Amino acid sequence: MLSKNQLKLVNSLRLSKYRLEHGLFIVEGVKLVEEALKSSFDIYQIFATAEWIGFGHLSKKKSLVDLVEITQAELEKISALNTANQVLALVKLPAELPVPAATGEWTLLLDQIRDPGNLGTIIRTADWFGIDRIIAAENSVELWNPKVVQASMGSVFRMPVHYTDIENYLSVNAKHVQIYGTLLEGEDISKVKLGKEGIVVIGNESHGISEAVKTLITHRITIPAATAGSSGRAESLNASIAGAVICYEIRRQCPK
Amino acid sequence: MLSKNQLKLVNSLRLSKYRLEHGLFIVEGVKLVEEALKSSFDIYQIFATAEWIGFGHLSKKKSLVDLVEITQAELEKISALNTANQVLALVKLPAELPVPAATGEWTLLLDQIRDPGNLGTIIRTADWFGIDRIIAAENSVELWNPKVVQASMGSVFRMPVHYTDIENYLSVNAKHVQIYGTLLEGEDISKVKLGKEGIVVIGNESHGISEAVKTLITHRITIPAATAGSSGRAESLNASIAGAVICYEIRRQCPK
Repeated sequence: MLSKNQLKLVNSLRLSKYRLEHGLFIVEGVKLVEEALKSSFDIYQIFATAEWIGFGHLSKKKSLVDLVEITQAELEKISALNTANQVLALVKLPAELPVPAATGEWTLLLDQIRDPGNLGTIIRTADWFGIDRIIAAENSVELWNPKVVQASMGSVFRMPVHYTDIENYLSVNAKHVQIYGTLLEGEDISKVKLGKEGIVVIGNESHGISEAVKTLITHRITIPAATAGSSGRAESLNASIAGAVICYEIRRQCPK
Repeated sequence: MLSKNQLKLVNSLRLSKYRLEHGLFIVEGVKLVEEALKSSFDIYQIFATAEWIGFGHLSKKKSLVDLVEITQAELEKISALNTANQVLALVKLPAELPVPAATGEWTLLLDQIRDPGNLGTIIRTADWFGIDRIIAAENSVELWNPKVVQASMGSVFRMPVHYTDIENYLSVNAKHVQIYGTLLEGEDISKVKLGKEGIVVIGNESHGISEAVKTLITHRITIPAATAGSSGRAESLNASIAGAVICYEIRRQCPK
């Protein structure tokens, strides 16, 4: 049974402020909770229906988790999904790790991504293509926002995402690696020789790459649009789409 | 001033049923309404703040549009945006055009895309890469859903999207063009020789490509994931991401 305090706690975790205060975030649905259980993250509490519990998702190792059986109606009260899906877990926020240097690997750097769906999708895509890390501007949408976790489809448990002062990060790393950004009059990405390391900057959904960051880009690139027969085309690509095309191109040139 | 009936009409158009009944759909915000005004679509009515009206967005040609000045508070009542943005237009649903054959051009075929953000993003991406048309399964999310229009960033006014029986469409067109689908054990997309025409099938967000459609695919492809050092990667890509990578690869091989 779901107590009033539990209901209050879960609902408070929809807000960043309370996630920080309690050191917890929400993971919902069979697939994502499974990913959480497989991961190295600590589970604080699981609210699940009899159906989920009966299926035996909890291994021996995880059987010490605080498991609360609730009804479908109770689950619907705490779920933000359109269709509440058997289980909701509260997971402990991991310790913040030191921000790694950008050498020897590919890094995606996010210049103020604001949409949680975009951030989650970028994490999922970076995970697919084996990008090593994501660096996000401090004012980007928060990683543990439930919509980010959801859109990442569990990749949030694997992909290291670091929030930091990106101008400083770029300045320090510019000495060692190329910094690529999609800008007007950039070189066709398919013709750029991409090596084993570098930083790719992804701009904000509305404003693109900020002026201060633009000056730190060492290599302007572009994703070529069709021009034939066009009486006006899309002016830009969605941030997560642009990021995905670049990740694909990196792996096409340097499989991993 | 916004009348009660106008308020009721706009709010009803959030639902597909009433869009069909009234033959209207909603377009919101400065940028998207500008795209609507530039397009060949007929505008039925515009609700705008004094700020928008004062800026002179309406050309002479469009000055006959029924323009209703409303306050910011009234706009907020009818807006679904997080930040209501000066203007909301009611646009007439266009006439349905006959479904074109898939020859001589590239076609994206959507097998039950359900998320409006995904559909809008796919339309925007297809527009960018100069894909000629989109064919959608009849039970896909509706094109004139306000979230689709929003995510398309106006590409919905340019990109032809046809809803039809996709199994029948594929059967008929399989005689003339290759049908590509991302399936397990497919050929690496970057190694497939893509020509000037073909159909690319994009699967449903949760279930991928349906069984019936799978049997109609003539060429299994795959977007290669990283494998090195992986202790479990993302299991799949978001539908709009997979579609974008394939569109990019088509244009990389055959610029347009």
